[in-house]
Parts: sequence; structure tokens; C-alpha cells
Amino acid sequence: MDDVDVLTIGAGGGGYPAAFRLAAAGRRVVMVDPKGLMSGNCLAEGCVPSKAVREIAHHLLRHRRFHKSGLHGEVSVDYSEVVAHKDQVQTRRYEQHDAELRAAPNVALLTGTARIDDPHTVAVDTPEGLRRFNARNIIIASGSDISVPPIPGLEHCLSSRDLYALRPSVSTLPASMLVIGGGYVGLETASFFSAFGTRVTVVEREAQLLPGMDPDMVALLAPLLDPNIEIILRAEVRRVEPTSQGVRVVFFDGTAEQHRSAAQAFQALGRHPVIPAGLREIGVTVGAHGVQADPTLQTNLRHIYACGDVNGRTPLFHAAVRQSVAAAANIMAGDRHADAVDFLSTPTTVFTLPAAAYVGLTRASAAAAGVSIEEGAYSFAEDSRAQIFGETQGEIRLFFQTGSLRLVGGWVVGIDAGNLIGQIGLAVSRGLDARDLAAFADQHPMSAEGISRSARSLF
Amino acid sequence: MDDVDVLTIGAGGGGYPAAFRLAAAGRRVVMVDPKGLMSGNCLAEGCVPSKAVREIAHHLLRHRRFHKSGLHGEVSVDYSEVVAHKDQVQTRRYEQHDAELRAAPNVALLTGTARIDDPHTVAVDTPEGLRRFNARNIIIASGSDISVPPIPGLEHCLSSRDLYALRPSVSTLPASMLVIGGGYVGLETASFFSAFGTRVTVVEREAQLLPGMDPDMVALLAPLLDPNIEIILRAEVRRVEPTSQGVRVVFFDGTAEQHRSAAQAFQALGRHPVIPAGLREIGVTVGAHGVQADPTLQTNLRHIYACGDVNGRTPLFHAAVRQSVAAAANIMAGDRHADAVDFLSTPTTVFTLPAAAYVGLTRASAAAAGVSIEEGAYSFAEDSRAQIFGETQGEIRLFFQTGSLRLVGGWVVGIDAGNLIGQIGLAVSRGLDARDLAAFADQHPMSAEGISRSARSLF
Amino acid sequence: MDDVDVLTIGAGGGGYPAAFRLAAAGRRVVMVDPKGLMSGNCLAEGCVPSKAVREIAHHLLRHRRFHKSGLHGEVSVDYSEVVAHKDQVQTRRYEQHDAELRAAPNVALLTGTARIDDPHTVAVDTPEGLRRFNARNIIIASGSDISVPPIPGLEHCLSSRDLYALRPSVSTLPASMLVIGGGYVGLETASFFSAFGTRVTVVEREAQLLPGMDPDMVALLAPLLDPNIEIILRAEVRRVEPTSQGVRVVFFDGTAEQHRSAAQAFQALGRHPVIPAGLREIGVTVGAHGVQADPTLQTNLRHIYACGDVNGRTPLFHAAVRQSVAAAANIMAGDRHADAVDFLSTPTTVFTLPAAAYVGLTRASAAAAGVSIEEGAYSFAEDSRAQIFGETQGEIRLFFQTGSLRLVGGWVVGIDAGNLIGQIGLAVSRGLDARDLAAFADQHPMSAEGISRSARSLF
Amino acid sequence: MDDVDVLTIGAGGGGYPAAFRLAAAGRRVVMVDPKGLMSGNCLAEGCVPSKAVREIAHHLLRHRRFHKSGLHGEVSVDYSEVVAHKDQVQTRRYEQHDAELRAAPNVALLTGTARIDDPHTVAVDTPEGLRRFNARNIIIASGSDISVPPIPGLEHCLSSRDLYALRPSVSTLPASMLVIGGGYVGLETASFFSAFGTRVTVVEREAQLLPGMDPDMVALLAPLLDPNIEIILRAEVRRVEPTSQGVRVVFFDGTAEQHRSAAQAFQALGRHPVIPAGLREIGVTVGAHGVQADPTLQTNLRHIYACGDVNGRTPLFHAAVRQSVAAAANIMAGDRHADAVDFLSTPTTVFTLPAAAYVGLTRASAAAAGVSIEEGAYSFAEDSRAQIFGETQGEIRLFFQTGSLRLVGGWVVGIDAGNLIGQIGLAVSRGLDARDLAAFADQHPMSAEGISRSARSLF
Repeated sequence: MDDVDVLTIGAGGGGYPAAFRLAAAGRRVVMVDPKGLMSGNCLAEGCVPSKAVREIAHHLLRHRRFHKSGLHGEVSVDYSEVVAHKDQVQTRRYEQHDAELRAAPNVALLTGTARIDDPHTVAVDTPEGLRRFNARNIIIASGSDISVPPIPGLEHCLSSRDLYALRPSVSTLPASMLVIGGGYVGLETASFFSAFGTRVTVVEREAQLLPGMDPDMVALLAPLLDPNIEIILRAEVRRVEPTSQGVRVVFFDGTAEQHRSAAQAFQALGRHPVIPAGLREIGVTVGAHGVQADPTLQTNLRHIYACGDVNGRTPLFHAAVRQSVAAAANIMAGDRHADAVDFLSTPTTVFTLPAAAYVGLTRASAAAAGVSIEEGAYSFAEDSRAQIFGETQGEIRLFFQTGSLRLVGGWVVGIDAGNLIGQIGLAVSRGLDARDLAAFADQHPMSAEGISRSARSLF
Repeated sequence: MDDVDVLTIGAGGGGYPAAFRLAAAGRRVVMVDPKGLMSGNCLAEGCVPSKAVREIAHHLLRHRRFHKSGLHGEVSVDYSEVVAHKDQVQTRRYEQHDAELRAAPNVALLTGTARIDDPHTVAVDTPEGLRRFNARNIIIASGSDISVPPIPGLEHCLSSRDLYALRPSVSTLPASMLVIGGGYVGLETASFFSAFGTRVTVVEREAQLLPGMDPDMVALLAPLLDPNIEIILRAEVRRVEPTSQGVRVVFFDGTAEQHRSAAQAFQALGRHPVIPAGLREIGVTVGAHGVQADPTLQTNLRHIYACGDVNGRTPLFHAAVRQSVAAAANIMAGDRHADAVDFLSTPTTVFTLPAAAYVGLTRASAAAAGVSIEEGAYSFAEDSRAQIFGETQGEIRLFFQTGSLRLVGGWVVGIDAGNLIGQIGLAVSRGLDARDLAAFADQHPMSAEGISRSARSLF
Repeated sequence: MDDVDVLTIGAGGGGYPAAFRLAAAGRRVVMVDPKGLMSGNCLAEGCVPSKAVREIAHHLLRHRRFHKSGLHGEVSVDYSEVVAHKDQVQTRRYEQHDAELRAAPNVALLTGTARIDDPHTVAVDTPEGLRRFNARNIIIASGSDISVPPIPGLEHCLSSRDLYALRPSVSTLPASMLVIGGGYVGLETASFFSAFGTRVTVVEREAQLLPGMDPDMVALLAPLLDPNIEIILRAEVRRVEPTSQGVRVVFFDGTAEQHRSAAQAFQALGRHPVIPAGLREIGVTVGAHGVQADPTLQTNLRHIYACGDVNGRTPLFHAAVRQSVAAAANIMAGDRHADAVDFLSTPTTVFTLPAAAYVGLTRASAAAAGVSIEEGAYSFAEDSRAQIFGETQGEIRLFFQTGSLRLVGGWVVGIDAGNLIGQIGLAVSRGLDARDLAAFADQHPMSAEGISRSARSLF
Repeated sequence: MDDVDVLTIGAGGGGYPAAFRLAAAGRRVVMVDPKGLMSGNCLAEGCVPSKAVREIAHHLLRHRRFHKSGLHGEVSVDYSEVVAHKDQVQTRRYEQHDAELRAAPNVALLTGTARIDDPHTVAVDTPEGLRRFNARNIIIASGSDISVPPIPGLEHCLSSRDLYALRPSVSTLPASMLVIGGGYVGLETASFFSAFGTRVTVVEREAQLLPGMDPDMVALLAPLLDPNIEIILRAEVRRVEPTSQGVRVVFFDGTAEQHRSAAQAFQALGRHPVIPAGLREIGVTVGAHGVQADPTLQTNLRHIYACGDVNGRTPLFHAAVRQSVAAAANIMAGDRHADAVDFLSTPTTVFTLPAAAYVGLTRASAAAAGVSIEEGAYSFAEDSRAQIFGETQGEIRLFFQTGSLRLVGGWVVGIDAGNLIGQIGLAVSRGLDARDLAAFADQHPMSAEGISRSARSLF
């Protein structure tokens, strides 16, 4: 039995920021991760590799537009090189993480699977045998895994692992692809492959793409997507069948069964939290979306924290990092509330082509929360930078609480969405108001002009 | 003699935002501009057209880097098409401004040159003859013009007008170009043309590029510029001589005269304010950098305001707009201080390839102001997005007041500089501190991650 | 028909701040008020005179406590002198207001009653005859009046006018007093007279004193009030009857009729808005609590504003002033939203002995609004200043939004309540969080220490 | 040798808040204090007992004013009872501190004198013998002591200990008193005793009272002090001589020696830091004003902190507490900069009768720091509450940075000064601006109205 101050189950975004922070403050920390690597799903098969692919596709689309603006020459895609580019980015980051870990004192990474025996005891099944730890604090940061619902034949589908993992199984461009699930993973992937020339069909069960996101924002985004992508809504997938040409997806459209065939099918039906063995048994509450954690990241056992995807609050890497840092602060403060996370002000970007991003309360969620709002908006049709790129569709829209004019949220659909949401999100997180935004000289000719313009439109 | 509430001399960024705001509030407003167009130097020959050219060059450079990452095919530049692209952006904006003007009540644009006869009387020489106005308030927004210092032969040089005006005189790519002046206009232009294949030499009188900007920031940027650009510092240009091949620039290097020859020379030796006739005579103070205006934009005559380049405070379009809006608020408030501009929090971007951007106090200006600072930094070498683009040089650096850890300024050199400075600048303008920045979950994998990382590096 | 820019109906706290602000900005303004005096109910019969009485009573109570701490000598009350003191304060303020009005350009005060004829026409019945005005903007600031519900015999009761008006009808101390209505006016008056030696009974219809205020705050305050005050809750007054000794109040206690007799009865059954004649007819919406106005103070007719008690939002003088200033800003901006009021962050103090004060959301209103909160508290039992005064009962209690720890409200019961609520209220209005409060070195040995202590208690 | 996590030298305001915070977070903490009591000079002989005396004097003065406003009866002072009142407040607080200490886990208070042997070793000379501790962190919080400059005969003077300590040597009112030193301790004491009837003379070496404070603020305060106090400036005390009637103070007025005689002399010539033995020897930098500490409270040895009077930054109890809490946060964070103190935003009140309070930069210090300011002011002559108390002299004055209108400081001279400075100070510490203050509905009729009024006076 080894004594440690803090043990993290998982060494991804919910785990290592806390581990490093606590170790730097003199605590003895052990991270346990079955991969034996520092970093989670985001780097393994999520945001980083998909964005490496995305930016190639994005560049290609811009190239086509700029073709009439002074740049001559046809450009073709070599998908295996795209994959190699992605692999190279991932490899570089793994190496950097490894170097960071080796340079850090007081913290060790143990390859293995954790099982919680009692509120302070964790057993780890390692390649070298079982080890047991007595830990003053435990951080549950075991992340999430790809969901595989019980749809017959789903095993014939690719998942994000097949596309985005290091040295993935798919390294040539399929001629056609069926995407099951119109959430952000499915829709992003559809965007990229369609840009590369794959014929893509998206099949979504709900009545709108990106279920759960603001319908009005989605309604702005949808017509901006590549019109070559076929989108089928309200389509409940019944089964997936291998064919000689690839695969066939059968779905029920509310009236009858329909089907589509393609070379490949890609399923993006969500992720579910990975709950460590023994956690429920020691009395930690686990809800429908994951381990229950409050804004301080404490579970119902004050010395046990749950950070990142495993708590199901905002399953995004940057949210996990922020949570991990907050948990570290609270652990350093003796499990008191030294820090807490405002889940609502975490920005989210759908990295389709073009992208859409949002933060805080938007029209629908404000209404649901009973928050009365005023809107300020800016159309990219009037934006210099958007005109320069010929990407004049979309808008910035900000939502202010009526009366106080405090910024409660916003969305950006179109150019620079993923960049602009940072400034908007910081303003939301600090409770800035319309006057604060209007008083800042947002830069010309940059799309951020639209932020102060949106604010000024209220006065 | 016509009575108006407000007369603006100039209809560019310092003039029209106030004019529209006041007109919407029921004031009768006349704008006087010799161009007869709403918009100033920025659209005519400055930021907008140069950025239209810049983004083509930027795309080209990225294309070369992505060439090994999945995109095949040679790309060549047709400079006349680049110019046409630029012209088309400018034309679209002129048309939009024209439509806005026609839609606005209570405001008229008069083509002509203004002369101030007494503190409330302005005579305008129009194509239809002289008109006189009695105005309760006057906004001086007459902008700036290209400086032409008395260097023999400077008339053989191009200026920004020749490159960036609508239907400019230069529409084919020169084989070689001498850029006189290593300020931001010169250096940006050098970057663009070098990317397109022109052989470029920059000749700068001072010991550093971008004189007046933080030397440490410039020292980070300089090695990232295209190494094909020849840069000659501490070079005082003595004369410019036409040659059969083009032009020759003779400069003194501190010891002896040297020279360089090229197909074209481009002079970027700064701009000077355009002071309306009669302004000094009615007693308005004009200083070395322009009409003196305080943060409320009032001149020493409280009912006369000076906005934009003409006051020499922060000669940038977005600064002019912000100033114009503030002047409007003060005019509506009966010339009291309803609004005032924080000149220091205006962001500036040098749109070279790559760019550098800064806002507020940086290392050198904080030292000069006696403000003790702590620095937080983030290298793009560790940034996912920078790695994806292969643009891993440069950094985000934030400057916090010692003790309060209030953000007083920052710079970004490298990827997304012009985007990131918006979030940093808003934080500076609102006095946010390191803890505020650290508590925001900046998005992964976007370069904005570096903002909260820089802040967290202090704790 | 005279043309004016702005006409205010009422020259009290909802009217004159706007009038002065607009006049200073060059607008021609007329205020119409039947009293012919600048100032409203607050000075006439409300907050100012009652606080003049209150501070004498407060001093007397402190004197009794300090009697054992070094100050010897019996002190007795001469109520007619208390009234004279109050009258002198009121007179001084009327004279100051008069001097301010005479010094202001562009604004006139007209004695008379206004009737609105159409959305821009107001007829004023003055001692010199009817005058008509055409006004670009109208501010409804006609205030409120004492409510007299249809309870038989209520005309035998005193109202606040009889106690607090200039040269009031009551200038000798009654031996006993029945207070009908346990709202803040009734309870304050009960406190003062009980301190002076009157035997006081308070009769309140609801199940708690101060109906509408947070029950938990009231439960803290009630036991700190003078135990000599008899408090009867759930008592519905049926009638008031004159007796040879004074007056008898008959009430129903839920089971049977009960009664109490005293030398005087004082009714404090609330106030109702005074709606100008013609307002409804021109289409302005009037609701149950007054003229409907949004946070910009605009009514449904954008050029007509309603400020102060007449809109029933937060019927307090300082709220009226704030609203009036906001309305002026919006009028100056051409009826756009240049300013808006956050009704929720207006502080309220019940100036009983001791006092209770609150601002924003407290426990009950946060629950009603669905806002999850964490509480931080500080007991005056541990406060140096409270110990010095021997006033160690009561507390500071702050309410923070869970997660963000943004301060959403607070209350103070006991020493310095009316002073402390200012700092707390400013923090609420600016959205400061627990960390902001904790980082400020609240002064020792002052009761404000409890503010940062309450915030720190969360960490 | 005992191992502890943290050892504090001193158990006053610089020591115990950190000790409790760290102990609550699980650290083993020992506080060492020669008094063997938790609490420092403030409670022993400073702010708490002097304010206990002050409030009796304050009440007495108000009584005299209210005498014509309804309160009859002569009041006389029994000084020995005043002292007993003061003793009782001190005793109560000592008992509370003792109870807190006994209730806290992980923290012990050791009576003794500390000597630092090496950077992690502290020897304590206790009544039971020498004990040695090995400490990971050390907090120097040894406070300050009364300075006794080498003026002949100064031993015949009383010091604050003789007046304010528990069971002090002086318990009867002297007929006359010479106060040497016109700083805040001297001037407060002069105020109190003059109110009680002692004939007081203040002798100050500098050309203004309250040397070091803003001369313009002092110039506002001085004429409001009791005119019975004789004030002699520019008077260098040469010697103090006992006489048959008491004591004689001889001073040089720049030209000749002068003298004054009285029953008692009270010297208030400042305090000096108490530097623990061995501190300099281990290499910690000690400057002219105390142990050098930066805003994180770290000395040049990162694991050793200096909090409270001993660092000479802002020698006030509340500053010490804030510093102690910050040091605790930094210790918990492994000696990194988790928290830092903004020394400038600590409020200071001179508790004379009336009082003066200030915070941040005022007119003189802003000029010295090169900060350009605009002023907003409010005279108590127009304040309802001041009129009610007949205390209409003095003002609120706020200082805003030109342009940003950020509040950088303020002073209050007169009624409620010590209360109002809290709200102003919080606003300074959070960087609020004039608009933020103007948008808050400060309560009527309270003196805090003057805060928003001062802010609004700028617009």
C-alpha cells in the first residue's frame, strides 16, 4: 500500500492539469490510465486529429473560392497524406506531453486499470501486477467512450476511432459515406469528406441537425453547409447491412423503411462516461449523464472529484482542463470551495465548413431559463473581412439580459466562428454588459468588429 | 446660411458613425467631404484593400506549407486578378455605404471643401458654389494624407495610393521593389509582394523595424518574416533616382552612401493630419501630431470635436469609429463627458506574414510609464492549432500589473495574431485580471487557449 | 400652445433629475407639479422627515445603552422639538431645491395639474388659467398617494402626512398608538414612537411583519425590535371607532373579533400610483401597480416615459432618481436604449430600530426565481464595532449564485444596516463575485469587515 | 525538533488568519507569540480599544447637537467607566479568540520568543524551555512596537499602551494633555479627550497635521476638529520635563524654543517593525520600513512570508488580515502566486471627530504617480442625512482616471467617513468606473447618495 496525496483515475484533460498543479505545489500525485499516456480522447480520436483534417479541407474550400481572385492552378487531395499530416500532429503532441511528464517532479503515470476499494483506497491492475494506493484525494477523470447503441449491424460502421486515431484503419478516401448521427461529430466529418470529394449522406433521428443546440442557430448554419451533402432528418436507423459495395443503412422515416447505400458508414451516436469500477459501491452518486459533480467538481464525497467527460456537464477538452484546475485549487484548499466552474460560459464550436459557435444562453435556452433578453446582431454580409474571403453568409448574434444589458450568451455562424467565440465567451464569463462591449474599439478590418457593432445596435 | 445641429468635416471613420448616431437621435447633420463619398483612407487606400491583397498572399503561403500535407498541385499568382479582387471588395463596400446613407434620415453628405469662418460657421466650396452653415457642433474628422518628406526624387516612388486605391496605377507584379520605410505599411507591403515573388528590399532609417513599437516584440517578429526580404536598418535615404531599369535608392549607412536598385520603389514614410482651413484661426489648438483632443474628443473649444487620424492619437480606422461614437454621445449630452475613449486599449495589428498584434502597455511602454509588471507567456510551439498549420513560431505574451495582476497589455506574434488581440484587448479595456482570464475555459484546439494558459502560468 | 422638448408631469425624484439633465444638455424643459415645489413625497411626508425623527429616537436608544459606559445623566424627549427639528430639515431642503431651480437654465416649474390630450399635447390647469404644451417627450413622474382602503372609520386614523408633513397636525406625543399595517412605514413609525415612550400596538393582516419581504430576514429582525411593541399578526381590521379616550380598532383574528384602544391610530396601508388624466386615453398601458415601464423607463409609447413611484417598480426615492437619469439619457439618445435600470439591484432599508436592509435576490426570492445559491454569513456577535455599541444581534448574509459565486443579493439586520447595504448593493449591481469581495481589505474595526468575512466563509 | 508545515512568528492579524486557513486545509501549524494570545497590537492597544473610547466621545458630541432637537438633559462623562467599557470590549474579544483557537484543529499557539536558525528552523524560547521546529513555510507576522525616539525626557510621556491597553495605567481624565505627534494616533486621541473636557495641545514637527496624507484632504479636516484643541505645527520637540503640575514639553518653532505644560503628555511618534532574531542572518532582506515583501507577501526567500505591520506596507489590522489570507493561498499553492494584495486599495480612516477616510490615489498621490485624474465631488451641505445630524461640513470626493473614468481613489471628510470608504474602496479595488457608480441607485436619505452623485457630476 502506497500513500499518495492525490490519485487521478485518467490522465487526460480532466486529470493531468490537476496532477501537474498539485505536484508543483508539493503533493505526491499518481495518475492511472489504461493507455499509459498523458492525454485523453481529444488527442487520441477527437478534437485534435479531426481539426488537423478539417483545416486541410477548409484550406481547399478557400482555395476554390480564391481561384478567381488571383491564385491559379488546380489542387487535388491525397487523403493518405492528410492522414499522415494528422498523425504527425498527434505524434508531436504525444512527444511533448511525454517530455512534460518526465520534467515534472512529484507526479507519476501508471499504466493500468483502477478499481476503488473504499473511499481512500484504489487498486490498480498494472502489467507488473496489482498495486494499492491510499489517497487523501481522488479525481475521477476517466473520460468517455464511443457509444454503440443496440442497432443491428452497427459493427459494420466506422467510428471516430477508425478515422481519427493514430494510424487509423481508414487511410483512403471512400467514394461515398453514410453518416449516422447529425450531431457535431457526424456533421463535421460529413463536411470534411464532402469537401474532399466523397459523396456524403447524413441520417439523423431528430427533426433538426445538431440536436440539443439552439434551433435558430442550426437553421442559420444548415443552408451554409455543402449542398452536396444529403441530409435526412427524422430518420430512425433500424439496421446496418454489409453489401458487396460496402454497406447499406435502413431507416424508418415515420411512415416506411427507407435505405441508403455507400462505400462506408460512419456512426457518430454519442459517447458515454466511463465509470471506474467500485465507484458506485463506495457511495458516489452516478446519474444519467455521469458521475454527479457540482461546480466545485466535488462529488457527494467531498474528497472525491469528478472532472471532464465523466461528469457529463460539458464534455469538451477545454471544459475538462478548466474543471481539473478548479479541482486542484479546491484540493489545495482542503476540499473547500476555493474555485468553482461556470459550466454555462464554456464555448462550443461545431467545426463544420463553415463553423458555428456558441456560448452561454442563446435564444432558446434563455427562454427555457426564463431570462428575458434583447438581441444585438451583425451580418457578415457587411463585414470587410468576410467580403475579402467571399464568406459573407452568417452572423454574430449576442444575447443581453433585458435591463442590465449584461451579455448572457451569443453565437457566431460563419467566418472565424471558432475564433470570435473566445472574446464573446470571456465577456459572458465576466458578466460584461453591452456598454462594456460597445466601448471597446474592435479591430478593423477583422470580423470581431461585429461584436462591438452588435452591442452598439442596442443603443 | 443653413442651420444644422452638427457638421462633420470628413465623412470617414471619424465622421460618419457620429453623423448617423446623431441623425438617428433627431439631429440635423451635414457631412462635408471632398471625395463626396462616405468612408475615409482606410477603404480608399488603406486597411481594407491592403488586407484584400494580404489574404491572397497568406493563403498562398499556407498552400505551400500544406503542399506536403495532402493538397497537391502548383499554384501561381496572377497579380492583376489580385488587384481585381481588391477592387471588387472596395466597390462592394462603397455601394453598401452609399445605400446606408440613402436610407438614413436627417443626414446629408455634401461634396466639397470646408473652411471654418468662426466657431459656429463653416463655409463649403462645392461644385455648385459656396454654401455656408451655422452649426451648433462641429466634428473635425478630416483624416490624414500620405506624407512626402523633402527627399530628392521621392516623386519617382509609388505610395500606398498606387497600390491600394480603386483601379490603382500598379496592376502588374514588379520583379523587384524597394520599400522605403520599415513601418507597418512598408513592412506589410513587403510581405505581400515577397510572397507573390517580387524581390523586396526594405530600407529603414531607425535601428529597428516598426519604429515606435515594442523592440522585444519586433525582435520576435523579424526572424519570422520571409527571409527573402532584404532588410537594411539605420539607412537614411538621400535620394531616389530613375534608372533605365526602374529606380535607384541612395542611402547613407552611417559611414558611406550605399544604393539599391529595383523595378519599383514604394515609399511608406508615414501620414500627416489634414487640418481644415480656418481651424487654427478660430483658436483651436493644433499640436505636432494633429488637432489636440482629450479622451472626450473635445478640442479646447468644447463644442468642436476632433476624431480619427486628424487628432493623431491612434490613427487606425477602428479607433476613429470608437472616437466618433464617443463624440456623438458627448454632443447628445450637451458637450458634457458622457463618454470618453481609452486610447491605450486600442488594438493594433501589423498584418505582415505572419502578423504581430499588440494592445495596452507592453514591456517597453510599461517600463516607460513606471508600471511594474509580471509576464505570462505561451509559445505557439506547444499550440495544437499552430501545429496543425505548421505555424509554430511566435507567442502570446500578457502583461499584468504586479500585485493586482490586472491585465495591462499583451502582444501576439504569429498565428491568429489579429484575431487573438481582440479578446486580449477587451480584457485590457475592462480591467480584467489574471484570475478572470484563468477562470475562462478558452477553447481547444484553438490558439486562444494560450490566453488562459498565459494567465495560469502566474499562479 | 408652447413648444417644449420635454415635459415632466411631477417634479419629484422621478422628474427633476431628468429635467435638470436635459436642460443642461440644451433641451427646453417644463415640469408640472400641483405642489409647485421641486421634490416629491419623500421630502413632503416620507423618507426625509421620518428619518429626521428616527435618528433622534436612535440616538436616545444608544444613550440608554451607553449609560453604563461612561455617560451619565437622564435624557428626556420633547416631541414638539423633535417635530421642529424635522421641520427645519425639510425647510432647509425645500430652500436648497428652490435655489437649484432658480440657478438652472432652460427649465421651468409650473404649478398646476396636467391633462394629456394627445401623445404630444399636455394641458395644464394653472392658477393663471389653462396652458397647453406640445412636447417631443413626456415623462410621467406623478408619484403615488396614500391609499385609503374602504375600512369603516379609517378617517379617524392618522396617516404619514399627519406625522411627517411640514408643520404636521400631530406635534405632541400620544400616550398610546395603534398602528394599522405592519409594512415598513408602520413598523418604522412604531419603532420611533415606542422609543419615545408611546405604548404601541401593530396590527397586521398577513402572517408576518413586512409582508413581501424575505420571511427569514423578517424572522431575524422581529425579535430585535422593542419588546414593548405589541404585534398582532393575521388580524384583519374590520372598523375603526372613535372613543372618548381616542380610538378603537376592531379586527378579526380568524376566529372572532378582537379590539384594541389607544389615544391615536395610525394607518399605513400602502400607497397607490397617481395616474395623470388622459394617459390611458392616449393608449399608454397602465397595469395593477402603475404605468407600465420597461427597464429603459419607456412606456408602450416610446417617447413617453414613466419614472418613480408611478410605475410601481421600486417605489423608493433613490430608485426614482436613478430611473429619471436613465430616462434622460434615453431621451437624449432619440428614444433609443442608451441606459436601462436594473430594478433588482436597488437597495431597500427598513429603518426600524434596529434596521434591516436588503438588495437583489435573497433566500426566498432566489428560490422563487430558480436561482441556486450559496450563502456566506457573519454574525454581529463577533463584530468589534457591534461590541463597542453593545448592538451584537443581527447579521450580514450574502447570497452567491452557485458555481459562479457571483453575488446576487444580501441582507443586513442590525447595526449599520442602511450603510452596509450600499457596498453590497454596488457589488450586486456590478456582478462582483465572492472572490472580488474576499480580495478587498474591509476596514477594521468597522462592521463592513463582515462583508469580506462572509465572502471568505465560502472558500 | 518538531516538524510542522507552517510556523507563524506572531499570532496577530498577520498571523492567525493564515494559520486558521492552512490548518483547516490540513496543514499542521504552530503560531509563536510572546503574549501567548491570539491577536496583535490592534486589540491590545490600538484600533479596537481606541474606537471603544471614540464612540463614547462621538455619542457625547452628537448628544450636545441633538440637545436642541428634542432630547433634554445634561450628560456628564465618567472616564473610568469609559475605560471599563473599553476593557470589557477587549476582554470579550480575547475570550472569543481563545474559543476560536480551542475549536480549531491542527493549530497550536505557543507562548515564547522565536529565533530563526536557518531558512527552515525556528527555535522558540518558551516558559517550559527551548523548542525547535522544522517548518516548510514560515510567516513573519511579528508586528510593530511603539517607537521611542531619542528625545530627552520622553519617558515621562504616556504612550498608547497607557491609554488603550487592558486595565491601562490611566483611568482618570487628565485636566490637560500635550500630544506629541499629529499623526492619526495623536490626533484621534486629542479628539477624544477634548470631547471629554481635557484641554489638549497637539505638537507636530511637520507643516501639516497627518503628515504623509493628502494635504488637501487634511486641509478640509483640520477646521472641522474641535476648535478647543490647540494645534502647533512645525514644532520640533527638544525635550520633555517633569514639573510639579505634570509635564512640560519644550520645542523649537524654527526661531526659538517654546514650551507648553500640562497634566500629562502623550507621545504618538509612530511605530517600528519588530524583526525576529536571526531573520537578517538567514538572508531575508529587511528595508527601512520592515521586512521586504512583494504583493504575494513573499520575501526574497520564497517560502518565507511577511504579513502585517512587520512589512511596513500598510500597517493596519485589516491590511494584515488580507495579507495573511493571501499568504495562506500562496503557501497552499506551493509558494506560487495564487493570490496577491493590491496595497493601494486598502482604506484608511482617521477616526477623529469628525473622521476622514481615504483609499487609493487621491489628488496628491495621483499627481506624484503621474496619473491624470478628473474629480467628482459632493458636499455634505446638500446631504439629507448630514442635515438630519447637523453635520453638514465635509465632502465626498472621488478621483477618476482621465479618459477611462476608472475610479482610482477617493476621500470622505465628515459624516459616515469610515462607513462610506468601504463602498468606495471596493469600487477602487475592482476597477469600477464612473458609469458603474452612476448606474447604482445609492440609497436615500443616506450619505452614500453622494457616491453616485459624485460620479454623475462628471457627465
